[in-house]
Amino acid sequence: MNADGMTEADLLKTLFGTLPPCGADVIVGVGDDCAVLRADGDDVQVLTTDALIEGVDFVVGPGFTFENLGHKALAVNLSDIAAMGAIPRHALVTLCIPEHYGRKEMAELYQGFSRLASRHGVGVIGGDLSSSRNDFMVSVTLLGTASRSEILLRSGAKPGDAAMLFGRIGDSGAGLDITRGAHCPSEAILLERHFRPEPLVDQGRWLANRTGNHVHAMIDISDGLASDARHICEASGVGVRIDHASLPVSDELAEFARYTGRELDGYLLGAGEDYALFAAVDASAATEIAGRFRSAFPRTPVATVGSFRRGNHVEIRWENGAVSELAGGFDHFARQ
Amino acid sequence: MNADGMTEADLLKTLFGTLPPCGADVIVGVGDDCAVLRADGDDVQVLTTDALIEGVDFVVGPGFTFENLGHKALAVNLSDIAAMGAIPRHALVTLCIPEHYGRKEMAELYQGFSRLASRHGVGVIGGDLSSSRNDFMVSVTLLGTASRSEILLRSGAKPGDAAMLFGRIGDSGAGLDITRGAHCPSEAILLERHFRPEPLVDQGRWLANRTGNHVHAMIDISDGLASDARHICEASGVGVRIDHASLPVSDELAEFARYTGRELDGYLLGAGEDYALFAAVDASAATEIAGRFRSAFPRTPVATVGSFRRGNHVEIRWENGAVSELAGGFDHFARQ
Repeated sequence: MNADGMTEADLLKTLFGTLPPCGADVIVGVGDDCAVLRADGDDVQVLTTDALIEGVDFVVGPGFTFENLGHKALAVNLSDIAAMGAIPRHALVTLCIPEHYGRKEMAELYQGFSRLASRHGVGVIGGDLSSSRNDFMVSVTLLGTASRSEILLRSGAKPGDAAMLFGRIGDSGAGLDITRGAHCPSEAILLERHFRPEPLVDQGRWLANRTGNHVHAMIDISDGLASDARHICEASGVGVRIDHASLPVSDELAEFARYTGRELDGYLLGAGEDYALFAAVDASAATEIAGRFRSAFPRTPVATVGSFRRGNHVEIRWENGAVSELAGGFDHFARQ
Repeated sequence: MNADGMTEADLLKTLFGTLPPCGADVIVGVGDDCAVLRADGDDVQVLTTDALIEGVDFVVGPGFTFENLGHKALAVNLSDIAAMGAIPRHALVTLCIPEHYGRKEMAELYQGFSRLASRHGVGVIGGDLSSSRNDFMVSVTLLGTASRSEILLRSGAKPGDAAMLFGRIGDSGAGLDITRGAHCPSEAILLERHFRPEPLVDQGRWLANRTGNHVHAMIDISDGLASDARHICEASGVGVRIDHASLPVSDELAEFARYTGRELDGYLLGAGEDYALFAAVDASAATEIAGRFRSAFPRTPVATVGSFRRGNHVEIRWENGAVSELAGGFDHFARQ
């Protein structure tokens, strides 16, 4: 929370309320995972930007490497492209470098960035290098392409749609707590999931163009399931009810909870940075899509975790049948 | 200079030496004022990104306002679009906000940004908001359009071309020194030129498409004339000789030098952030273009300040006929 109680939602409202209008080629502006611009014929261009700031998004401490930071700086942007079902193409990279980091750190950073970029066919077309007084900052703007008829927005969820989750949730949050001193036998895997998230680019693309228009809306889970479920519901004008019993728990996260005695729910619902995909899928097609997804991506978990509903409630149904409203997830300005 | 003696040029080499290849639609990648992507037919898209960081690019001190910062954050990117002769269109804005700034400061910032955006028809299509521990940072990625046949790169200068300057140089540097305690009667104007530079977007566009292909190359002067003259020469594989006597000095800068007793040359050659345009123009057309430019833009100074030559020397010829090599300008990592 800032000086005058400013939250991220407040600030977005203050700032984007005074914006000049966008051009006729803007199909989607602020408010989805990416902006969408009309391109050639049925093609669209998608654009996203995300920054990682020292002391806020990462700490140069236990388990941290600049190589992983370079990977993650691109991964978080690739995940936004994935959530649109688009193909990543070009990046612009801005680095603000305090004087205590030098050539070695920057070479490591770029190695992590470049390896992931190569795997996804992303080239760097520009950027900005600057010094900074205190903290390191890396900001990436990523461009992608898609066809307009296939792209998945946040705004297409309908009452009755199945709420489907592709990928893991909670593991990155457990990894973060391991950097802060928690321990468990499989901590190396959880640390890897925190420091080197794998964006589900191929999976997002598959969901957009191999499911016969049965996927209606999609978002990536960067802020946590509770928060991002709210985002997709607000954009679509619907509510959602999550079945607690259906939430997937990785073996490593289950073990982490056993060893540390910590509650799973905070990780599953509130922790961010897992970069799973959360989608609204035609209920009649959900089982078939889950089956085909498992065949196509055997290493990516898939689960139907609830259903979208009329109204605007983001709810969770517990094992005993009780239903409660899900509080929001991560807000950059609402932390203590 | 960073821990291990890293300069900006070093770093660019380290980083961009390991980059994955760009796609077939990339006409210009890293190394010009903007990247250029093939778009629809003869159309191209241009992209640039530039960040302003507290304590490096600005100080929250005498004369500083967040309104001006918002203006300048967009202006520096508009100037890169201007240097291509392109039309600015869409922006993505990233803010990293320490907790001592709140809604008021951000509303001021956005007012400065939005006013300039409206004047140039720029809409904001996305961005990222984050907190930061110490310093404020604003990063803008700006997209523009142009036709491929008209766009002006850094790489087209030819030996014999006139070196022409559109706009003022040195005034922003004098304004910066006024924020540090220097005084003169017209200091308000110099402060304005430092805090609120006016990017020469219409002028750049005019030079690209109203001069019958007689303008061969262009760059905006963000780092200082000496440094940016070197950039355009390196990209074009030529040298340049600047005539010291021909450099334009505004009335306000002349007065500043008289009152403070400071040498003009540091401001004219080394100071950055004036966002004038520096171009290589067919020598046979230079006088005619200068005349028509004055008619079209009576408030923007224009001068022929030297000529491009074979070789790779960036030189200055003094009034006594002596010629010396011009040292470089501003390097983000080379300061004391």
